[in-house]
Amino acid sequence: MRKILQTLFLLLVALKINAQDMKTVTLLPVPQHINFTSGRFALMANFTIAVKTDPGDSILYFAVNRAFQTLNRRTALYFGQQRITVKDVSDTSLFIINVKHKKGMKIGRDESYSLTVSTKNIVLEAPETIGALHGLETFLQLVQHDQEGFFLPAVNIQDSPRFVWRGLMIDVARHFIPVDVIERNIDAMTAVKMNILHLHLSDDEGFRIESKVYPGLQKKGSYGEYFTQAQIRELITYAKKRGIIIVPEFDMPGHTTSFLAGYPYLSSTPGAMYQPGPRFAFTGKPMDIMNMINTSPTPSFDPSKESTYIFLDKFLGEMSLLFDSPYMHIGADENNGVSWKNNPDIAAFMKKNNIPDTHALQAYFVNRVQRLLTKHHVHTIGWEELLSENLPKDVAVQVWTDGSKMNAAAKLGHPVIVSKGFYLDVFMPAYTHYQNDLLVDKLSDTLASKVIGGEAAQWAEAVDKDNIETRIWPRAAAIAERLWSPEQVKDIDDMYRRLFLINTQLDEIGVQHISSYERGLRRITRGRDITPLKTLTDVLTPVKGYKKLFARMTKPLNATYQTAPLTDVSDIVFVDSEIQRQFRMTVKHYLNSPNETDAGLIAAQLEKWKANNTALEPLINSGLINNDINENAKKLYTAALIGQEALELLKNKEKPTPERVKGWLNTLDQMKKAYGEVDLSIIPEIKALVTQQMEAEPANYPII
Amino acid sequence: MRKILQTLFLLLVALKINAQDMKTVTLLPVPQHINFTSGRFALMANFTIAVKTDPGDSILYFAVNRAFQTLNRRTALYFGQQRITVKDVSDTSLFIINVKHKKGMKIGRDESYSLTVSTKNIVLEAPETIGALHGLETFLQLVQHDQEGFFLPAVNIQDSPRFVWRGLMIDVARHFIPVDVIERNIDAMTAVKMNILHLHLSDDEGFRIESKVYPGLQKKGSYGEYFTQAQIRELITYAKKRGIIIVPEFDMPGHTTSFLAGYPYLSSTPGAMYQPGPRFAFTGKPMDIMNMINTSPTPSFDPSKESTYIFLDKFLGEMSLLFDSPYMHIGADENNGVSWKNNPDIAAFMKKNNIPDTHALQAYFVNRVQRLLTKHHVHTIGWEELLSENLPKDVAVQVWTDGSKMNAAAKLGHPVIVSKGFYLDVFMPAYTHYQNDLLVDKLSDTLASKVIGGEAAQWAEAVDKDNIETRIWPRAAAIAERLWSPEQVKDIDDMYRRLFLINTQLDEIGVQHISSYERGLRRITRGRDITPLKTLTDVLTPVKGYKKLFARMTKPLNATYQTAPLTDVSDIVFVDSEIQRQFRMTVKHYLNSPNETDAGLIAAQLEKWKANNTALEPLINSGLINNDINENAKKLYTAALIGQEALELLKNKEKPTPERVKGWLNTLDQMKKAYGEVDLSIIPEIKALVTQQMEAEPANYPII
Repeated sequence: MRKILQTLFLLLVALKINAQDMKTVTLLPVPQHINFTSGRFALMANFTIAVKTDPGDSILYFAVNRAFQTLNRRTALYFGQQRITVKDVSDTSLFIINVKHKKGMKIGRDESYSLTVSTKNIVLEAPETIGALHGLETFLQLVQHDQEGFFLPAVNIQDSPRFVWRGLMIDVARHFIPVDVIERNIDAMTAVKMNILHLHLSDDEGFRIESKVYPGLQKKGSYGEYFTQAQIRELITYAKKRGIIIVPEFDMPGHTTSFLAGYPYLSSTPGAMYQPGPRFAFTGKPMDIMNMINTSPTPSFDPSKESTYIFLDKFLGEMSLLFDSPYMHIGADENNGVSWKNNPDIAAFMKKNNIPDTHALQAYFVNRVQRLLTKHHVHTIGWEELLSENLPKDVAVQVWTDGSKMNAAAKLGHPVIVSKGFYLDVFMPAYTHYQNDLLVDKLSDTLASKVIGGEAAQWAEAVDKDNIETRIWPRAAAIAERLWSPEQVKDIDDMYRRLFLINTQLDEIGVQHISSYERGLRRITRGRDITPLKTLTDVLTPVKGYKKLFARMTKPLNATYQTAPLTDVSDIVFVDSEIQRQFRMTVKHYLNSPNETDAGLIAAQLEKWKANNTALEPLINSGLINNDINENAKKLYTAALIGQEALELLKNKEKPTPERVKGWLNTLDQMKKAYGEVDLSIIPEIKALVTQQMEAEPANYPII
Repeated sequence: MRKILQTLFLLLVALKINAQDMKTVTLLPVPQHINFTSGRFALMANFTIAVKTDPGDSILYFAVNRAFQTLNRRTALYFGQQRITVKDVSDTSLFIINVKHKKGMKIGRDESYSLTVSTKNIVLEAPETIGALHGLETFLQLVQHDQEGFFLPAVNIQDSPRFVWRGLMIDVARHFIPVDVIERNIDAMTAVKMNILHLHLSDDEGFRIESKVYPGLQKKGSYGEYFTQAQIRELITYAKKRGIIIVPEFDMPGHTTSFLAGYPYLSSTPGAMYQPGPRFAFTGKPMDIMNMINTSPTPSFDPSKESTYIFLDKFLGEMSLLFDSPYMHIGADENNGVSWKNNPDIAAFMKKNNIPDTHALQAYFVNRVQRLLTKHHVHTIGWEELLSENLPKDVAVQVWTDGSKMNAAAKLGHPVIVSKGFYLDVFMPAYTHYQNDLLVDKLSDTLASKVIGGEAAQWAEAVDKDNIETRIWPRAAAIAERLWSPEQVKDIDDMYRRLFLINTQLDEIGVQHISSYERGLRRITRGRDITPLKTLTDVLTPVKGYKKLFARMTKPLNATYQTAPLTDVSDIVFVDSEIQRQFRMTVKHYLNSPNETDAGLIAAQLEKWKANNTALEPLINSGLINNDINENAKKLYTAALIGQEALELLKNKEKPTPERVKGWLNTLDQMKKAYGEVDLSIIPEIKALVTQQMEAEPANYPII
């Protein structure tokens, strides 16, 4: 009974947030329960921290000091306390952190915490170290500023995650992503309470880790770009100190060109020699690419030879010792079996062993590799194609194409991780990923309980070390919230409001997403002022779906996309435009309740866009700006002009004639044609001014 | 005779640059000989590279591919050629690189190269690998752009450095500077042909490298912030591939608090226990600091105990194996001997061994350590205080306080490295370092020949990983030119013109100097538009001399500067203002020959500054901008107003009345008072408008 009352109370608390306080929440992800009380805690130089925990809880002490320094730098308050050590246990400290059990990072830990801010002090309590780490991030996100200085609102927070697996996958194979970039991604993940960094370490285009047992892997498979084992060890430690587990992936039996470069005897095509690179030549036509994925004889391991398993035993053994992840990912995706069918020895092997088709042969391969991993004391995880009826139940299945696979995996009793709907390389706005709660909708409660979480996935055909942060952040934070916060938290506008707050904090802690974008603009202007170019590019977003990716993969046709310079406007701009989101909010608000302030803001923005063409002239005349940028500049000018005309009518409470509306919409529709693989993002908002009503955003976009 | 004619010819070529072509030179450092011919080489997608060298010259192949990618990214031409390998030797390639001898990196290599650009192709020739690396950087710097596209001017260049030691010292002890930041500094050094990275790895405040022999060094001496040996190995390789040698410094016998934290038995104060940190408590008064340096009993090794040398033998042996530098730096600076005098055992030791004073005792210590290093096959280098009469002649002396030490060291036959005048932590503009050719002026030719080069020195009391790049770059490039180019190249305005060209290229290759500054501004505005703040801070520069450093070291008094947030405007702005330099050039040009274009540019700039106060209002009202920034904003407004009034008179060819001039100058003089440790940099230029003549820039500024 008491428990029911408690639950009821907490439910009321939860409802209360949605109704009233939500607009003042500065947190992302939103906690399970939040209850604002009255007053504020003023941050001043006398701020002090005490930590009550096992003195050997070095991860906690590191995290506390790190948060303290972040705060010191954000506020420039010059705290008197310098470093927080085991000696700092005073009950009169202004921030008291209390951890019951020092525990290391593992999947499925008790990650809960409670944080209470009163006007007098702050108390963070957690049953385990990891909960306190999350609480520290919440603490930092609560910090606000006004005329009176820095403060935290008085509040009670009870928090714990919805899912235990909140991952980000980074493909370091297509383009190598070096240590410092990975570290910055880890910092960002920590800030939004993600806990799994899945590194896609090998693929056709590159083998990205040093093997001491098989050094030919990095020597012939990486063009010199790979992590040394020392670097991996450092990364693992770096991640652990921030509450994050690194799960390595070695993709097999397909996607293995870079394996085969050093060890061609593993190949299912006898005598073939390999160089790391795309698994087939692209033709420039999207449908051809899709077709080739299904029908090309792509490089793959020979599952019929014992030598393959001897190699994998030694190699995976080495890797399982290097990583201390409970899981190892073996990929198992997109192996179309064509190379296997083409090899008479493999056909004979199938016949001899009653293996009916290449699907069954893949299942045979996966099961053998899984047994090897079990021997090396790690669980197996793979993309959905690894699923087969006889797979041991501890194997986790990562779903990426469709819900039926999720259903099948859950029914067979496997832990399921959802990446379908979380692919960052499809250039979809954050809100489309945010709405992706389909993951459990279609499952019964029992089956849904098998879904242990999800993963944002950043494939790297069209990203490199210089633009990957702009691609991942802040978008992945929306997915982080989906995986942490209650299902009911799903207001898109409010998500964006908080996303751009957090965006600033990610910039502050050193993530390069904003810096990379601006450096990209400086590259284009070659030392000239970027302001006018930025006014334009701030509202340009990459075309949605795989159009941009395919364009990149096939430009130029004679080259591999791996050495193509990712320096176009479409490579450097954000997928979500902050300016567009702000403009949308203002237009929405204005259409709901017309008022002078909003009208003024809209008019000023439209005038800035219209006037920008003149500001861009010197750059256009310099010849540095290509025709695509010019076309987009013209679009912005025209859109602004239409917006201004429509706004005039709105201000006068007039309706435009249907002909005029038709003409405007016609012009705006023509703007859907993309130049340089970027869209002008503000067309829906201009359209709203024209039609005097805001259309809902499309729930999704076509992928191809 | 032939040689004389050749020399004469080259001299004529050299003279020709200065007279005529210099203004079109885009190179920094300026090469020894440059001769523009007619036409240009147009860069297009068909650009190809061939390399003729020893197939095992992996450093060259790495450098060529790196340059090729930089160019590919800068031009976005999508070169058809992908990677340059040993197979690429075709004579029809558009860029042919020819290296006679594959050789590793060593101090004193033949670094020369010749580069010939014709309308048809480009040829780079070098006797050794390192020369080709320099030539590749020259090649990249030659690339220009106009309406017709990217091109290199046709040119013949013969180049080699004036000095063999062109160094940058980074203090990673006061604040730890992690691997990625060091790597970016190496990239920048390579771009301006520096060749020595001197890492100041230990000091009172921190011990920054892992010792496996004495792990207490990093465990107790670093607060967890140090390079692992694996990281050091990677850094050494990273540097080598870019033509740079890493010289490690372990400062002793003073500046050793962080050594003593783990191994107190080394101390000359028996029984004392140590924690890494400043060697004495600062009082806030600059003269007190200077006084304390000379009179405080600062922590130091005990030179009288054999156990000290046993420790150093093992430790330096370990380090000499880890680094493959021909030199190891032992510091030996600022040991005032007070701790030694206070210790009766040491006094007894001195008496027993006829050591007359602590200077002689320091000489004894240095000589013993030098012998240890010789045993470990490395030469010794130290700051000037290590000099004594009996020091072996191979010991190099790094001069930092005065010319007499240089003289003495050269006379005694030591190689001399000059850092006097090259201290970047004194906040002097680049031109003051650039003018520092005093180094050999006062020496006879024989003595001057002992000067093997110089080093820019970035001490780290007031810099951390987030602002160090803004401090070092682009300023250090001016020093790089001083150390590479002929003595006669010394035009300040032209140096700045080229410095800001190179600045853009450093940004492009990933150096964070511009990004860090802008992130610092975003930190202050917390997500608001930084434009108005930047208009102000773009012309604010840190107060010159140690004033700013001392302010930082003593704010707050109860703290160590190591945990102080380096986030003030004075911490993040550049030491040289690009806007100020541009404005200076325009005003100078206008005063020399009045014309409407310049008058228009000046008027526009002044108006922008004047109008900026209004633009700043929202930020001022937000309470985020402190009073110091406000005061500086007022200054800029007033200075702009004066400038506008003065310009009006100039445009009308009128002279202001003496009273008016006096009033203006009086107001401008009052502006010399600094707020928030920054100066308004454009006062001399406003003064020039007022007095209608541009004063020469002060050759130097007071240091304290």
